[in-house]
Amino acid sequence: MEYVFKAIAHIENAYDEKFGVPRQSGLVNGLESKIVFEPEYRVREAFRGIEEYSHLWLIWVFSEAVREQWSPTVRPPRLGGNKRMGVFSTRSPFRPNPVGISSVKLERIEYGDMGPVLYVTGADMMNGTPIIDVKPYLPYADSHTDASNGFALSDRQGTLQVIFSEKADKKLSDEMRAYLYEVLSQDPRPQYKQDSEKIYMMKFGGMDISFSVNGDILTVNDILLPE
Amino acid sequence: MEYVFKAIAHIENAYDEKFGVPRQSGLVNGLESKIVFEPEYRVREAFRGIEEYSHLWLIWVFSEAVREQWSPTVRPPRLGGNKRMGVFSTRSPFRPNPVGISSVKLERIEYGDMGPVLYVTGADMMNGTPIIDVKPYLPYADSHTDASNGFALSDRQGTLQVIFSEKADKKLSDEMRAYLYEVLSQDPRPQYKQDSEKIYMMKFGGMDISFSVNGDILTVNDILLPE
Repeated sequence: MEYVFKAIAHIENAYDEKFGVPRQSGLVNGLESKIVFEPEYRVREAFRGIEEYSHLWLIWVFSEAVREQWSPTVRPPRLGGNKRMGVFSTRSPFRPNPVGISSVKLERIEYGDMGPVLYVTGADMMNGTPIIDVKPYLPYADSHTDASNGFALSDRQGTLQVIFSEKADKKLSDEMRAYLYEVLSQDPRPQYKQDSEKIYMMKFGGMDISFSVNGDILTVNDILLPE
Repeated sequence: MEYVFKAIAHIENAYDEKFGVPRQSGLVNGLESKIVFEPEYRVREAFRGIEEYSHLWLIWVFSEAVREQWSPTVRPPRLGGNKRMGVFSTRSPFRPNPVGISSVKLERIEYGDMGPVLYVTGADMMNGTPIIDVKPYLPYADSHTDASNGFALSDRQGTLQVIFSEKADKKLSDEMRAYLYEVLSQDPRPQYKQDSEKIYMMKFGGMDISFSVNGDILTVNDILLPE
């Protein structure tokens, strides 16, 4: 059996590429994302009562991770990238149906030219990601504090200290510096490719960020602003 | 943009019809459901490591709730059925894309003729419901104890005392009686159709259950066993 789902909305944020997107929702909480709906769903009544909820679920499509064939195992980056786990035991984007779920904090809703726009924080989705559903988060059904984190526990480990070079620092507003600090301190590198000599390039908020990592310290070397 | 998803599995349990299915996951915890995968996904390695998790997400299709047109508002049963809320402010099955998410407890995994079968409790899905994804529940990302329940708070209210007539009682095993008690105490009636004279019929575990409700007391009048 096959089911056809339509994109009802997409997300707009500073995560210009997959590299740098937090590995799960709620890890980077400062950065705001906008949920912009397709014209058909720009209906004010469809959101009546949504402000009563502090958190929402976004159901979305890993549109960048579609593959012809599914693989029974994947290598979770935080396990060092050399250990294979069952795809259904992970949140890897490379799964039979490339569908993701993210719980985000609803900051506010605004009504304008684009219809109702939801402003959320905590998203782990790349700019432009298509969304197929928005639902309220219901803690009485969705929150299991006693659940075991399994081998994903280590996702909380490995935060870095972030240093900005003088050159880079001058190009950042206070707000953008704070966002970038939060994003980079999560350590966006694939765990199995650690090399202190390597210069990493990350697209973020229209900028090109170059950085390197030595031990627990990440240094932002330079920033190219959009022209 | 449209996306095609395949059913990778379906659920097997005692909820033979929509009437009686708990309104959210985790409300009825005694009853076990089986997740049976389609032949293509009966691959042992695809589940490697899943036992490390106590809870799973099931992403599924409201296959009984597909409508041609979406409606911007719905009437949540627990608000009395006469108050309209925005569809995106509810977990109603009648939404632009009929996709549901449920967090369930993983009891065990068994490997047999049907491949790897997951045994779970707490599901709020009808027997036969198609499943498009299974993911581990990650409390560090998915559990928000501080989230507000919004107007759904009342879903926790309204549990009933359940009494079995002598006739009905004789036909039930201790196990089935306990399950049925838990399911019925959740009050499966649509809130806006309460009538103490009415005899309700519910299909459950292959049986036909007849009951009536007076105040806070639900009486199971009779049970028809499968022939």
